[in-house]
Amino acid sequence: MEFEVKFLPEGKKTLVKEGATVFEAALKAGVDLIALCGGKGFCGKCLIEIIKGEIPPPTEQELRKIGKEKIEKGIRLACQLKVYDNLIIGVPNQSRIGKQKLVIMGVEPPIKINPNVKKFYFEITPPSLDDPRGDDLRINEILSNINNISFNYSLVKEMPSILRESNWKVTLTIVNNELINIQPGDKTKDCYGVAVDIGTTKLAVFIVDLLSGDILFADGMMNPQIKYGEDVISRIQYASQSNENLREVQNAIINGINELIEKGLKETGINKEDLYEMVVVGNTAMHHLFLGLNVKWLGLAPYAPVIGMGYNVKAREIGININPSGNVYTLPNVAGFVGADAIADILASKIYEKDNLTLLMDVGTNTEVILGNKYELLCCSTASGPAFEGAHIKFGMRAASGAIERVKIKEDFEVEYSTIDDEKARGICGSGIIDAIAEMLRTGVIDTAGRIVLENHKRVRKGEFGKEFIIVFKEETATGEEDIVITQEDIREIQKAKAAMYAGYMTLMRVGGFKKEDLFEIIIAGAFGSYIDPLSAKIIGMIPELPISKISFLGNTAGSGARICLKSIDYRKKAEEIAKKMKYIELAVMRIFEEEYINAMFLPNSRIEDFPEVMSIIKAPINVKRYVKK
Amino acid sequence: MEFEVKFLPEGKKTLVKEGATVFEAALKAGVDLIALCGGKGFCGKCLIEIIKGEIPPPTEQELRKIGKEKIEKGIRLACQLKVYDNLIIGVPNQSRIGKQKLVIMGVEPPIKINPNVKKFYFEITPPSLDDPRGDDLRINEILSNINNISFNYSLVKEMPSILRESNWKVTLTIVNNELINIQPGDKTKDCYGVAVDIGTTKLAVFIVDLLSGDILFADGMMNPQIKYGEDVISRIQYASQSNENLREVQNAIINGINELIEKGLKETGINKEDLYEMVVVGNTAMHHLFLGLNVKWLGLAPYAPVIGMGYNVKAREIGININPSGNVYTLPNVAGFVGADAIADILASKIYEKDNLTLLMDVGTNTEVILGNKYELLCCSTASGPAFEGAHIKFGMRAASGAIERVKIKEDFEVEYSTIDDEKARGICGSGIIDAIAEMLRTGVIDTAGRIVLENHKRVRKGEFGKEFIIVFKEETATGEEDIVITQEDIREIQKAKAAMYAGYMTLMRVGGFKKEDLFEIIIAGAFGSYIDPLSAKIIGMIPELPISKISFLGNTAGSGARICLKSIDYRKKAEEIAKKMKYIELAVMRIFEEEYINAMFLPNSRIEDFPEVMSIIKAPINVKRYVKK
Repeated sequence: MEFEVKFLPEGKKTLVKEGATVFEAALKAGVDLIALCGGKGFCGKCLIEIIKGEIPPPTEQELRKIGKEKIEKGIRLACQLKVYDNLIIGVPNQSRIGKQKLVIMGVEPPIKINPNVKKFYFEITPPSLDDPRGDDLRINEILSNINNISFNYSLVKEMPSILRESNWKVTLTIVNNELINIQPGDKTKDCYGVAVDIGTTKLAVFIVDLLSGDILFADGMMNPQIKYGEDVISRIQYASQSNENLREVQNAIINGINELIEKGLKETGINKEDLYEMVVVGNTAMHHLFLGLNVKWLGLAPYAPVIGMGYNVKAREIGININPSGNVYTLPNVAGFVGADAIADILASKIYEKDNLTLLMDVGTNTEVILGNKYELLCCSTASGPAFEGAHIKFGMRAASGAIERVKIKEDFEVEYSTIDDEKARGICGSGIIDAIAEMLRTGVIDTAGRIVLENHKRVRKGEFGKEFIIVFKEETATGEEDIVITQEDIREIQKAKAAMYAGYMTLMRVGGFKKEDLFEIIIAGAFGSYIDPLSAKIIGMIPELPISKISFLGNTAGSGARICLKSIDYRKKAEEIAKKMKYIELAVMRIFEEEYINAMFLPNSRIEDFPEVMSIIKAPINVKRYVKK
Repeated sequence: MEFEVKFLPEGKKTLVKEGATVFEAALKAGVDLIALCGGKGFCGKCLIEIIKGEIPPPTEQELRKIGKEKIEKGIRLACQLKVYDNLIIGVPNQSRIGKQKLVIMGVEPPIKINPNVKKFYFEITPPSLDDPRGDDLRINEILSNINNISFNYSLVKEMPSILRESNWKVTLTIVNNELINIQPGDKTKDCYGVAVDIGTTKLAVFIVDLLSGDILFADGMMNPQIKYGEDVISRIQYASQSNENLREVQNAIINGINELIEKGLKETGINKEDLYEMVVVGNTAMHHLFLGLNVKWLGLAPYAPVIGMGYNVKAREIGININPSGNVYTLPNVAGFVGADAIADILASKIYEKDNLTLLMDVGTNTEVILGNKYELLCCSTASGPAFEGAHIKFGMRAASGAIERVKIKEDFEVEYSTIDDEKARGICGSGIIDAIAEMLRTGVIDTAGRIVLENHKRVRKGEFGKEFIIVFKEETATGEEDIVITQEDIREIQKAKAAMYAGYMTLMRVGGFKKEDLFEIIIAGAFGSYIDPLSAKIIGMIPELPISKISFLGNTAGSGARICLKSIDYRKKAEEIAKKMKYIELAVMRIFEEEYINAMFLPNSRIEDFPEVMSIIKAPINVKRYVKK
């Protein structure tokens, strides 16, 4: 008997025989599980989490290496756990091979620091019989330059003791015109904040010094909400079912953030009390789930958010483990599928200050497409899917050791490639796939419809679902068991993904009444984007034709935007202005989008006149059908 | 064997034999316990609360009439409970004879209504594919006349459902620039608030229609904190011992207020949700204990309050049972012993608008003395004690049925008196005691030192602690058992109480550099004040000499001030201005006060030149010693 084992977050599946280990299943599925001891249960490294399915009781090795407590939470060793049911398995980062390239950094323009958190050191005149005014009045007087100071209720209960125990020499912390902390002595230098970028797949947390603006800690993890659905829509559906579900999904992300904060506090030696603010970005669904807002209507037309403006809430109210009276600020959302992360991208990329028409794409499972300059900003969201992140691609994998990241195909169809960390090839990551398809197109392995047309070559073989092109022969691979190939299906997945992005761009161009020549610059944001070869991206028609010098890659600008708003309240005002100014185009109802999507399914596009440079390079047989309006 | 039984809030004590009932003790102590069945345990009316002491298990009557649950909370029947230990017993209002005159109303000047709570009805344009902005933006747009609206976090979680279920036709409620409620349909008329006056002894709660300003419900009870100490100082001491004690004392008053609110909601049919704000006044200690603030330093020089300014806190944060996101506002405190209630008195009496010098006294266990006009306001607090409320006076009692409230002594020392509800005399309330002493002075029963000098008259007799003057012979009293007398000790108590008040006034006059002739008007506030005969008050030297037409009694103006601030935020600003303007004089360190206190111990005063009118009326032998500076 056989069972299906599915690994999250990749979503890779495989069938294994009853009694096989989860580790064997991971090997078969191409999931990069670590196993220093070679699957003997000695190293205790191949920790996995059971998300669904019946499992046998723990082995002695598991009890020894993991402990009862964790086992009760569903943590097991992949090499010890045998499969007797269909399973869904979560693979945590620390169980992955090699140092994972969890890209969380992005370009951040220099800004003038003006944080929402203000700390002041004062020596206050104590009360006397001649001046028996309230403690609050003494503080209010010395803070007279700040209007309408309010006194946090929790603090007020401690205030008289702190003032007297510190001999009235204190540091006052003010956030949003509220006095939230009083510390003995001069603690003005201990002033920190947290920036958080909640991606559908990845979570990134940064601890920032609010005086210098320095990043003191940066780390990421897979978004723990992944167990409630790999994509936004399935999480919305799960969370909409009941208040309990909503709370569960909210708690997952809150706990994840708290875990990274705790790690950051340990590494930096900062006190929790001194983390006074958190700025959070994410797409609208991630934003709403973080705040525990009802997401039901995000899944129903017209997909209106509950909160579109910037929002402030006290850390204690949502269970974020910074100073309990600290402020949590979330950036504005434009619409149900263009959220706070897009605003953060715009802030970090400065597209809102550009004179010329600029295309900004934040590439992810959903790709936000923004077209504009300082005069106007059009935006839309396209469901590009996770293919660029290696999911739904036969040998796709994340950007980890052994992933093929660059591919070159020579005239004789021989392949040159490079892998991350120069290890033996284990699979192909996003940039490798784009390279591979661009090269197959350039050399004529495929035609412009994406069909593998090369015949009678040792690298072309027949697979289960059609033709396949061999990138690495099995002898050269890490496992030595299987050829690493690009299948006809893989090509199809990439076509769909890049078509969604390009059609989004074209829709905005047409809605805005722009001509092809108006486009001056392309900015690619998103962690994955940093590794794409811009020429390959142009060749497959993922982005419009512009000189390479006009194409830039900024990395995780969502995180950068969050940090910018953490460091300066001026940029929160700017964020609100940008959100108001942005014109959202709902693609679901756009005939234009449908048309451009069909055109963009071709490589580079059936509008070949828009890709003269690409057309002059590629040897692929031309096979296009132009969309015709019926 | 004998045990002492003490009754609260009066503080009356008596010794009874082992095995006597609490009801018998109450009779002996002169506590006006009700007993329709004559102490047989049938009527179940003589409910009392055990505050301290060991008690025997309940009788069958008690189990039947009270129930196990209440018995576990220490509620028992006075006629059933036998005394086998020293006991402290609380007597609730409903167990008192006759309808209690719990005076909670006060004069309230007409004001322009401008509440802090605003309700608006709107029909909002729902989102569409052309306009998929967030729900918050739609609301923000229609509320564009209000700056910086924030959205309550609890509300935001419900917001999208309410908007859609009500078809986007909703009533919005805004408090302190925060949207705290959304209701389906037009509910603009359901807009209510609560005004609360926390006296050391009495608690008064008013439910007010915030549109019309009408009082819809007014009720009072004894301050439930009384079990932690009868006076402010002992409560401060108790609450300072630990955080648990503080919480306990806070909970007592919060629960009392909630109980009265619940009663009010039942009587008026108003929904809790529609009580959007509460305004609270009280002396500084009551204010701090209500907010759960550390009162330790209120009991230590220089007696500085924690909070001197007006303070806002969410109802949910302190457990007040109105709309959980509703606002609780407390008026400013001037100093440790001149609190929010004094500010409320000033607002209600309009002394801050007077052209001429005015004396305002809020008579209570502590008497706040305020002297001033629109130009300046001096204030102090004097520990006048509870004598005027009948405590520490042999036959003193509260203003209930059978209390002697007016006394007239004729030339032949015969006494005419009237009682509340014209019932047979049971004791003397505050106004009766003042009358009696004034009349004894006028007719020469006592000399100006307060000594009973009348000899050889059937109304003068020798008591346990010196001479006594008989007001009512026992045959005429309700019990028929004892003469109702004024003792030498009673006179001493009243001398001390009135001396404290007058010395407070004189200290302010001298600190302010005023002359006797500058005083234009006297205003007496406080529930008890309403019943004082102004001439008697002048005769005993409780207040300075002014024509009766210049003396007014406003009742419980603390409650009036709370209602004024509930009805209009303009008066909150005024309250802050007044609090800032007030000059507090700490009597504890004033030599002047000591001097004037000694002078004021005489009747009317050893400064006889300040009381020409009184001196021309009284027949009392003059026996005064003038304070001489050493």
